[in-house]
Amino acid sequence: MTSIEAVGPTAGGDPGAPEAPVGDRAAPDPSGWTCPAPLRGHERIVMGHGGGGALSAELVEQVFAPAFGGPALSSLADSAAVEVGGARLAFSTDSFVVRPLFFPGGSIGDLAVNGTVNDLAMSGARPAYLSCGFILEEGVELGTVTRIAEALGAAARTAGVEVATGDTKVVEAGRGDGVYLNTAGIGLIPDGVDIRPQRAAPGDVVIVSGPVGAHGVAVLSRRAGLEFEVGIESDCAALNSLVAAMLAVTDELHVLRDPTRGGVAAALNEIAAAASVGVALRERAVPVPEQVAAACAMLGLDPLYVANEGKLLAFVPRAEADAVLAAMRAHPLGAQAAVIGECVEDHPGMVVARTGLGGTRVVDPPLGEQLPRIC
Amino acid sequence: MTSIEAVGPTAGGDPGAPEAPVGDRAAPDPSGWTCPAPLRGHERIVMGHGGGGALSAELVEQVFAPAFGGPALSSLADSAAVEVGGARLAFSTDSFVVRPLFFPGGSIGDLAVNGTVNDLAMSGARPAYLSCGFILEEGVELGTVTRIAEALGAAARTAGVEVATGDTKVVEAGRGDGVYLNTAGIGLIPDGVDIRPQRAAPGDVVIVSGPVGAHGVAVLSRRAGLEFEVGIESDCAALNSLVAAMLAVTDELHVLRDPTRGGVAAALNEIAAAASVGVALRERAVPVPEQVAAACAMLGLDPLYVANEGKLLAFVPRAEADAVLAAMRAHPLGAQAAVIGECVEDHPGMVVARTGLGGTRVVDPPLGEQLPRIC
Repeated sequence: MTSIEAVGPTAGGDPGAPEAPVGDRAAPDPSGWTCPAPLRGHERIVMGHGGGGALSAELVEQVFAPAFGGPALSSLADSAAVEVGGARLAFSTDSFVVRPLFFPGGSIGDLAVNGTVNDLAMSGARPAYLSCGFILEEGVELGTVTRIAEALGAAARTAGVEVATGDTKVVEAGRGDGVYLNTAGIGLIPDGVDIRPQRAAPGDVVIVSGPVGAHGVAVLSRRAGLEFEVGIESDCAALNSLVAAMLAVTDELHVLRDPTRGGVAAALNEIAAAASVGVALRERAVPVPEQVAAACAMLGLDPLYVANEGKLLAFVPRAEADAVLAAMRAHPLGAQAAVIGECVEDHPGMVVARTGLGGTRVVDPPLGEQLPRIC
Repeated sequence: MTSIEAVGPTAGGDPGAPEAPVGDRAAPDPSGWTCPAPLRGHERIVMGHGGGGALSAELVEQVFAPAFGGPALSSLADSAAVEVGGARLAFSTDSFVVRPLFFPGGSIGDLAVNGTVNDLAMSGARPAYLSCGFILEEGVELGTVTRIAEALGAAARTAGVEVATGDTKVVEAGRGDGVYLNTAGIGLIPDGVDIRPQRAAPGDVVIVSGPVGAHGVAVLSRRAGLEFEVGIESDCAALNSLVAAMLAVTDELHVLRDPTRGGVAAALNEIAAAASVGVALRERAVPVPEQVAAACAMLGLDPLYVANEGKLLAFVPRAEADAVLAAMRAHPLGAQAAVIGECVEDHPGMVVARTGLGGTRVVDPPLGEQLPRIC
């Protein structure tokens, strides 16, 4: 991956400093810069451990999985499939630490709903109930908390889920960053649906539901110390209705994944590894909005690694692909859906892109994250 | 309630300052003190909003409930009762921001399991699955994270629940406090069980499962700047097996509540308000360990308001009380269970204590919390 350090002072800002007002153009102070993708083997937590890449996976594999045990945790899916009282449920959680709290196209409240709703939907479940935990920093304005709660409530209504239970904790000033959120969600997995990374199979067509990269660039455009203003809004959206439209034409979806932290590259690598298959990516077929491509070029970011919050990847048997693609394009959240590759027997566990020049390159899994605190 | 400001420099320490090593006896610096129970009508979040008292309730009633809507959230119980796929489920969440991360008798990992398991058990549900979200501060030692994960896993095995799904985020140094945790949990509510605060009825006997106040004092004893060492351990424990033993003798438990933030006083007031009944408390019957009483006297704390993490309050019809009490005393976590009062028609919404001197006093609901960041 391209790491943020390679980019020069324009890209970084000072993620450790207090939020500067938008429009503040003070020169960034590199002394406070953090390291999103450091070398491995460290004894302390680094930003990259939260990036959803290889370091996050190491933390799960080496620390959490051995400590917690249990079969559900080890499935590596976005949500766990559990059975309670005869009902087959999807169960998932995410914490949200995005900076800034409000960004073009959304807020931490929207993310907290859509992130967890999408994790549930990626197993084909129908999201039903959310929990919501606030960790507030002493001194944050009540008006800010209210705006976030209202955004969260509105996003829940749009997604058709209910916030059923909650909790609030307050930490001293200087021990938080305004508002951190956690949501967990439960949803019902319909009979006959079995969607998980391990089901990817050679011959599957890989579809993306629309253009990628907007969320990460939209958040970054509001960070302090950045020299550009882009007219890009986050794609933050709940995908459960899109998934329902896809399931209406076939039960035979093999894999669904929302490419959040680590972007399309991380998601495809995780699927390739989980199913021991190869993924052949047609790099030029991946839709990237022009402004996102321009911003990424300026910042030295690769759009394949930038987080999305309202897109999904689908692995669909070839025989079903046309019908699924048509159903997606008939839905507002899938109007620009595109086939971007296929699942192959070659190079199991690896993602290989055909580049614009006719060559090939390996699309490595990210180590940490290009942009920390993007969700 | 007695607020921490009334206590003098011995009690406060500096909750905003970095953790001092145990044994550090530097004079506390009042400039960094926080306000756990300020006056109302403020425009900003104060520590008391996280205390589980009246300020927390105001935040829920005035900000969260209007924003989120929905019937489940408004029940004011520790967990929500929801139906998914024909199964009647309890669903609950808690975030954990306790300082220090390790304290006599437990750790944030134990709390994260037992807090959510107990919230589920207080509806009579059988806790089954937990989610777990870590918010890690950059720079925290991997060994600390591992110890917490191991404590969490061990507590889950003891409680008979599985950690099914998780998430990790990392925030920059100075934007967190080592480790914050969130857990959400789901459990199955058995047929015929209907346990909730609204069911408290005049004539119910009020039982506490054991001596109160140990958790809060144990955590406080490890805070920086305190001048005493007490031999008190947190009572942190999962109460689901105790609840199962109680339900084995009768379905007719009206209310169960674990008196965490705000202690016995907050829990009884919430129940009195929810059911519009009075609670007559026999103050001298409330078991308080001698060392807890001594520490509270020294610090100006009222044991009725100190947080517990392994105790429950039960409202039980008089006809069932002897059988329930016997079942509790036969269980290791209820060996010292005691009747501490009764539910009455008088003074609805209020808790009135008969004091040692034969008089009576109103036991007010706490405004904020005597001890911030106790769980």
